[in-house]
Parts: sequence; structure tokens; C-alpha cells
Amino acid sequence: MEIKEIALEELDAEKFIAEKTEEISLIVGDGLAVSALSGGVDSAAATILGHKALGDRLKTYFIDNGLMREGEPENIVSVFKDLGVTVELVDAKKTFFDALKGRADPEDKREAITRAFYRDVFGALVREAGARYLLQGTNYTDIEETVAGIKRQHNILEQLGIDTEEMYGYKIIEPLIQLRKSAIREVSKELWLPDKIYNRPPFPGPALAARVIGEVTPKRVGIVRKATTIVEEELSSSGAFQYLAILHEDKVTGVREGKRDYGLQIEVRCWESKDAKTGSPTELPYEVLDRLAERITTEVPGVVSVTYSITKKPPSTIEAV
Amino acid sequence: MEIKEIALEELDAEKFIAEKTEEISLIVGDGLAVSALSGGVDSAAATILGHKALGDRLKTYFIDNGLMREGEPENIVSVFKDLGVTVELVDAKKTFFDALKGRADPEDKREAITRAFYRDVFGALVREAGARYLLQGTNYTDIEETVAGIKRQHNILEQLGIDTEEMYGYKIIEPLIQLRKSAIREVSKELWLPDKIYNRPPFPGPALAARVIGEVTPKRVGIVRKATTIVEEELSSSGAFQYLAILHEDKVTGVREGKRDYGLQIEVRCWESKDAKTGSPTELPYEVLDRLAERITTEVPGVVSVTYSITKKPPSTIEAV
Repeated sequence: MEIKEIALEELDAEKFIAEKTEEISLIVGDGLAVSALSGGVDSAAATILGHKALGDRLKTYFIDNGLMREGEPENIVSVFKDLGVTVELVDAKKTFFDALKGRADPEDKREAITRAFYRDVFGALVREAGARYLLQGTNYTDIEETVAGIKRQHNILEQLGIDTEEMYGYKIIEPLIQLRKSAIREVSKELWLPDKIYNRPPFPGPALAARVIGEVTPKRVGIVRKATTIVEEELSSSGAFQYLAILHEDKVTGVREGKRDYGLQIEVRCWESKDAKTGSPTELPYEVLDRLAERITTEVPGVVSVTYSITKKPPSTIEAV
Repeated sequence: MEIKEIALEELDAEKFIAEKTEEISLIVGDGLAVSALSGGVDSAAATILGHKALGDRLKTYFIDNGLMREGEPENIVSVFKDLGVTVELVDAKKTFFDALKGRADPEDKREAITRAFYRDVFGALVREAGARYLLQGTNYTDIEETVAGIKRQHNILEQLGIDTEEMYGYKIIEPLIQLRKSAIREVSKELWLPDKIYNRPPFPGPALAARVIGEVTPKRVGIVRKATTIVEEELSSSGAFQYLAILHEDKVTGVREGKRDYGLQIEVRCWESKDAKTGSPTELPYEVLDRLAERITTEVPGVVSVTYSITKKPPSTIEAV
């Protein structure tokens, strides 16, 4: 089935919401569905659509895979509680870190996360809930990049010929698949999602695992999580499309208190983009770059060097992994 | 023996040259000395001092270790020919790449280069020339960093307790050891070295091996050499103290013509500094950063990402290896 994009200019958000709500009701019938909430705007919007369509027959889970930003699980549960949606927090840290152990190749890491998420975690959750459907916030850019073979987005399954019912025991519902990020933001506003959800920068499916070059361990995720908090604090007022910190595997020579300190490097990226399809580095003032470097090398243990990505997409991509 | 710095402010270049020339004459007596010319301002100034002191009794060699910048060996030979100094070009590429094979640790690489240079290459050259002395351009920052244990500079031997006569068969003369870079530039002007020598940015002892993270192979040196040419072309008019390109070992995801391209990353550093002891990144205009990224990702095969270092020294160092 070919998927046709609905561009921002042609989107009627109110009509879109009415249509998708009805579509979800029709598909699920009087059964149950499960929603996989990640904290990003895509899955948040999908969850609200599902909640409008199914009410209590939608079970919403937030999977704490150990790869989330600082305070993320608690924040999300609380935001959705205010919206009248109960979210169950599932601790799956061990499942994910076990799956990631010893993997350094980006596609290999992405595939391990996909398997842990759909097969190990949601396979069990959907079965236990007695549901037949998994609702998720896949968007148009995700399919495009996966099908083109640029990056395997963890939520792309059917488009790669995967029969989810046979493999995982449930079908997938993707109400936002015709929209890119900017259109999803419009829908989210119309859904009364708080702006701290729809205005937050995009966050990748594999979460902080996409921000660690080389093996993803709890320790390395902890380092990039600290750097991410600093980057988000310093750049949230920049108006940029997305900003992120990447922990490199390469080590570089540094110096502290007159002594050699062979340490870590963090790469900062900050993007101007409309839809993640193309992008260019934000022209951040040097005082901001300087403060980022100063804070990261001071507050994140082991980091002696910070760089700023100056490459456009293409040939770069938004994330490094 | 403690070495006392002569700061730029207290330097009388003319007097310094007269004293050092006489010192070299006294030490070498009526024997021979060998000079190790690297193309940097330090060894160039040391060579001219040696030439003034010894005339034809100084044999000057340029070692092509395979780690030099584009066109470097030929340029240097030609510049010194114009100054009346004959330089013999020695092809030692195989010796150095054999010594570097399989080594990824920075200090290990530096030590391999030191051994190849002093023991294998100069051990033989000094013996064949019938000389007893090796003249080299070690400066004050080199000893400081080596003794502090920050980076082992390849030319630091005696200060680490190495008896060069016993180990390599010759003694070392270091006429510039009390000066930092800015003072050496003053001496070089006074020595009538052409400004393309004394105004060129500092270049590390281990040459491009200091600009390759991980194993140093002819192929990887070839990549960083191309990037170095671009960085020097674009930044030579910046007035910066030093500018360089570093090839990372980490690979990152890129995209070309709509397809995934898992490729290389080059880090650019450009420093404001007086003496390399401390430094801060030059506030290059974004159009310059953009042109660097554009040229490097277009002209250097395999590179999909370019970053700019935004960290001060300390805690960064000027070079990464």
C-alpha cells in the first residue's frame, strides 16, 4: 500500500482528527488496543487520538527502557494524568541493556531495540491486556528514511514487509503516517496537547541509544543524558528545530590542572529544519557555544572536548547513529 | 638541569642568535653535526643557527616519513636551497608506517614515531655522516607538556632521563629550548627566514599521525592530508594561531543521493593562542564554517560529517592525539 503524504499546507487538523478517530474506532471495534507512548509529540498525538476513539479500551504504556532523558518517565506520566489519560510505567531497563550489550554497529543497535520493544516488551503487554492492536506515532519521514535505507526507524515494520500479527501477535495502527513533524505539531495543538509536548524538539525512536557511538551501556547513556540536559537547557530558547548531544567512542587528549587527561568527546548538533528531511546547523552565537563547552566539560565527568557539527543534511543526518 | 624560559618581552633576538651560534660552534668543535629539518619554524630556525655556526659541517636532512602535508618535502627543500642550505631528502615512509602499524593509543603512537626517528632513521644518518651531534628545534612548550605528562613530544629525550649518546650514538643540541613559539618567530625574522616559514601555523612533531585518531595507515593519512589542505587554504587568512583537521575513528551515519552512507567524520580546530599554553577557538564566521564543511564533504572521499571544536585549552589540548 502506498502512503500519500498530507503536507502542512493541505492539512485541515480538525477534519483530520475526526477522520482518524473514526478510523481507529472502526478498526478496533469493541476490542482493546495498546498505545506505546514515548514522550515525543508523535506518540503523544497518537495516544490522544486513540483515547478519543476508544476511551478506557485504550491501554497506554510508557516503557522506561533506560535510554530516556533525565526525568522523562515521570514527566510524561504526569502530563497525561492532567489530560485524563492513565499511563502505566513499565520498567524494561534490563531487557533493553541486555539486548544492546556488545553491539557497536548503528543498524545492529537499532534492530536490537526494535526486537526488544515489539517482541519482548509489547508482545507480552498486548497479550496480557487481551488486545489485538498496537497504536503508534510513526510519521512520514520515518518511512521515507527506512525505505530509502538511510536509517532503520524502529517503528517501521509493515513497510519492510514484516507481518506484525504473525511475528508479535498484534496489528499496528499508525494514524499519523501521512504527516511530517510540522503537520503533527498542528494536529497536536488542535488536540489540546500542552505546548511542552508539541513544541519539544524531536527525539529519536532509539532514544539516547541513538546518541551514543559504539556500545550502549548504562554508564555511557548516563554520560550522554547529562550532556543532553545541558544542551536542552542552553538551547531550548534558540528556536531551533532540534538540538542534541552525542557521546563519541573516540577518546582525545585533554589537560586538567596541568596533567594529561585522556578523555571523552561530546558532539553538539543544533538544526534548522522544517521537516527533518534537510537541515542546516543553527548559527549559534559563539558565547552560547562557549557556555555549552564550558558546562559540558565541567559538569559531565570525563569529558575534555566538545565539538559543534557544521555539516548540512545531506550529507549528514540529524542524528549520528 | 633546569631550563629557564626567555619570554618574548625579554628576548633580544640579535644577541640571542650571536650567543647560540657561538655555543653551537663551541660544542661541535671541528666535528660534524646533523640537523633534523621538519618544515616547522622551530627546526628551520635551529637549522639556520647551525648553518651560521658550522657551515658545511652541518648536514641537514628532511625525513619524508609519509606523515607530511601535501607538497611539504619538496617545498622545504626548495625554500632552503634559496637560503643557501642544502637539504637532503630521505624517504623513510616504510620505516614509519611499519612502526605505526596496529597502534591506536596516542602515547604508543608517539613513542613509535620517536623510536623510528631517533633510533632507526637518525641513528643511521648520524653514523654514516660521521657526526656526533643532532641539532633540533625543541621549544619550551614541548618540554613543559612532556614533563607534566600531558603529551610526550617526540623531541624530548634528555628531560625524560634518556641518554641519547648511549641509546642512539649521538648527543642532542637544542638551541631554542628556552623559547616559546612567539619568541622563536622573532628569532626567525632576525635570521631572514622567509615569512612563509615563520608565519606558518605550528605543526606537531608526529605530523599528520597526531591528526589521525586510531591506527595510522597510509590511507588514513591520505584522507587527513586532503582535509588539511582544505583547512589551510580556507583559514590561512584568518590570522589564527593554528588550524587543523583531525580524522576520527568513529563512523557516523550520513546520506548521499537519498541513500545511507555510513562514513567518516573530520573535526576542524582553529586556535587563538599566544604560545600554545592556553587557547580558545577562533570565532570563525558561519559562512567560513559552512564552506569548510561543504568542501571537506565534497572533496575528501568518504567524509559525511564535519565538526568544529568549541572547547578551550584547557581542558582540551591543541591537537587531539
